[in-house]
Amino acid sequence: MAAQRLVVIGGDAAGMSAASQARRFRTPDELEIVAFERGHFASYSACGIPYWIGGQVAGRDELIARTPEEHRARGIDLRMRTEVVEIDPDRGRVRTRNLESGAESWTGWDRLVIATGARPVRPPIPGIGAPGVHGVQNLDDGQALLGTLETLGPPGGAQGRRRAVVVGAGYIGVEMAEALLNRGFEVTVLNRGEQPMATLDPDMGRLVHTAMDGLGITTVNRAEVTAIRTGDDGRVRAVATADAEYPADVVVLGIGVAPETTLARAAGLPTGEHGGLLTDLSMRVRGRDAIWAGGDCVEVLDLVSGRDRYIPLGTHANKHGQIIGANIGGGYGTFPGVVGTAVSKVCDLEIARTGLREKDAAAAGLQYVTATVESTSRAGYYPDASEMTVKILAERGAGRLLGLQIVGREGAAKRVDIAAVALTAGMTVERMTLLDLGYAPPFSPVWDPVLVAARKAVSALTAD
Amino acid sequence: MAAQRLVVIGGDAAGMSAASQARRFRTPDELEIVAFERGHFASYSACGIPYWIGGQVAGRDELIARTPEEHRARGIDLRMRTEVVEIDPDRGRVRTRNLESGAESWTGWDRLVIATGARPVRPPIPGIGAPGVHGVQNLDDGQALLGTLETLGPPGGAQGRRRAVVVGAGYIGVEMAEALLNRGFEVTVLNRGEQPMATLDPDMGRLVHTAMDGLGITTVNRAEVTAIRTGDDGRVRAVATADAEYPADVVVLGIGVAPETTLARAAGLPTGEHGGLLTDLSMRVRGRDAIWAGGDCVEVLDLVSGRDRYIPLGTHANKHGQIIGANIGGGYGTFPGVVGTAVSKVCDLEIARTGLREKDAAAAGLQYVTATVESTSRAGYYPDASEMTVKILAERGAGRLLGLQIVGREGAAKRVDIAAVALTAGMTVERMTLLDLGYAPPFSPVWDPVLVAARKAVSALTAD
Repeated sequence: MAAQRLVVIGGDAAGMSAASQARRFRTPDELEIVAFERGHFASYSACGIPYWIGGQVAGRDELIARTPEEHRARGIDLRMRTEVVEIDPDRGRVRTRNLESGAESWTGWDRLVIATGARPVRPPIPGIGAPGVHGVQNLDDGQALLGTLETLGPPGGAQGRRRAVVVGAGYIGVEMAEALLNRGFEVTVLNRGEQPMATLDPDMGRLVHTAMDGLGITTVNRAEVTAIRTGDDGRVRAVATADAEYPADVVVLGIGVAPETTLARAAGLPTGEHGGLLTDLSMRVRGRDAIWAGGDCVEVLDLVSGRDRYIPLGTHANKHGQIIGANIGGGYGTFPGVVGTAVSKVCDLEIARTGLREKDAAAAGLQYVTATVESTSRAGYYPDASEMTVKILAERGAGRLLGLQIVGREGAAKRVDIAAVALTAGMTVERMTLLDLGYAPPFSPVWDPVLVAARKAVSALTAD
Repeated sequence: MAAQRLVVIGGDAAGMSAASQARRFRTPDELEIVAFERGHFASYSACGIPYWIGGQVAGRDELIARTPEEHRARGIDLRMRTEVVEIDPDRGRVRTRNLESGAESWTGWDRLVIATGARPVRPPIPGIGAPGVHGVQNLDDGQALLGTLETLGPPGGAQGRRRAVVVGAGYIGVEMAEALLNRGFEVTVLNRGEQPMATLDPDMGRLVHTAMDGLGITTVNRAEVTAIRTGDDGRVRAVATADAEYPADVVVLGIGVAPETTLARAAGLPTGEHGGLLTDLSMRVRGRDAIWAGGDCVEVLDLVSGRDRYIPLGTHANKHGQIIGANIGGGYGTFPGVVGTAVSKVCDLEIARTGLREKDAAAAGLQYVTATVESTSRAGYYPDASEMTVKILAERGAGRLLGLQIVGREGAAKRVDIAAVALTAGMTVERMTLLDLGYAPPFSPVWDPVLVAARKAVSALTAD
């Protein structure tokens, strides 16, 4: 029997994890694997781009987990700079275009993996394409931004003050604010919402705002960008909102991303309310036997609310890829869903969340109580004990944990994992109060901050 | 109706938590609370003593969570330097002795809490009581040790080299090794077992040994202390084992502790195979309606093995106290048990464990597989990503998580909480591989080290 062929669209986390995992199960004689990537890079950490820009990571190549040559040496026919321009599910083939030569051709598949990732949101405002305005979606974007920063010269150089405006105050926005601060820029973050970090409740976002102020980052809330102003040379000069203009030598767009499903929708594949592809638990596209999808182009099940959500995150993409590859290779795996955990930092400020925010709980029709506590990362008497605020949501009546958010300093963010596992297990906050967590003065107060929050939630439930 | 009286024996974590919690539920008119403490201090953090000795914590008073005066101001009649010398359960009274005056008297109770804590193990070897030989069980011990250190003078002073021998390589032993190293001592740890940290499997203990070597701490395994040698002045000069003599200007005993149940046993209360008091889930002493016990004098249920264990740890003592106080006060609470989580550090070395070791699993009649992985605390490309080793045990067949151990550097130890919650929930290692943990390059590789270990355990189960 001739080998079957697996075609993978997209050469980053989900796609290449799927390809690599399938290859572990199947020899090239059993399964030919062809992967198409339209960019210049494969298997890289997009999450690392802010730290490359900020200077903590020495160079672009450090963000590349595996080179195309390494993939090829493992029997994966990875074709770079090759864009898939059409999926033909009926005949089991994809049409590709070589972006260097422009040549097009068809490639047949027995199994298809769609890992087309996300595309950055780009509002149609004047000047958004001007030189000096940058996204940070992929390594090419990062390289271009670094080029602009080098053109601007060092801080305090001939050009004097250097000003950066970051549009968006989500994960990418705040991480890029840190990166540009580290590069010596005066940084202003323009945020459409009431508080930065809309993935937190507003009261916790307010803490982030205050802390960013303290770090020397100016955050402007309720700032809807209306235009990007350019100078005579065509380069960016300022960012305009309805109320004001913010001078800018460079602009970074961190407005968010949407699932890249243009090809899949054209092929009639099902997408959900957030625009992502819909799959079953084995990561097969719903209703399709031979087509899988994973990573930033799919929706995922939220285990807390029972609803589909869109959470583009490298850690999910890697898991999806592993499961897809195992299933295609003849193993078995399912992706049960997520609880919505995310961590981030801005300089020494740490931010974490998991589960539902108040508005998510309300939207899911859940009654809830909240509790917010201040505690410390270590025993209060131990050096460098840092303060953190923990907010917890619990379901009224049953007391089931619904969500937890943390804003603090060193040692704060990863405590969210305690709640992530508890959410996965459907644990009540009462049971959480008695969790046997690691305690020693350098690591925690005798009651871990998460337990203190759980105790206060129990009080809130009791008083309710 | 006259007030009922609650008597508490022992004024540290469990006892005073119970008293404080009961007071939250009941006014002094409803419930009189009398607590007896034979020492000079109440409500202090014994866990913090190594850091006080080591100089990270400025003074003794920082370790005191609440002074006797503060307790009294909250309506708790705390009597210091008063030892309970007899429990008379039939007549509901205790006999006490004032350690200053020697006066004895009886005090009646309607409810009794036994929180007598632990006593240090002291093998009957010659010289163990010599000046310069110290335990670190309580604040008085710590003060005495500091006195000895001051007498010895600064390192490199008139007396030249200063040598410390620590007997025991468990938590207290390794923490005291760090403390004495910080004080400028040459430190030798004499360990009876094959590897330090017997609460870890030997292969993980070996990593601790190597790391301690790297820190400049000499650890001697299979070293049974036979005598403590003294000089003409009666002060310690050396510690002798069967094979060798180790010069010592100061000796710290960190051999371990046993439950202090002399009084309780004399009163006919039930103790278990580890010598600790036996309670039900509400922390009532088994078979007794009006007597509760908690903290370092009780045995606790291990939720993983289903067996009783003895785990003296401040975090459990506090939880016990809360539950006892609530139950006595008219609320309701139960202590479901522990999973055996503990964290510690030696300088920048971090050590953590939860659940069962290989020998615990074998003793519980469980079949298991193990997997050990090396990973990093942050994304590999992020600055200060530190290496850690994670070992995991899973039940054969079912794949239930049985235990996890970590040896690493900054950011390693508290990851054990992920496994602690997973153990509490009875999670399989397969489910663990897909846990939605916090990921960002400064906090974790895209697969958290705990997930990497879980994945390898799944492979081991599959290959089994």
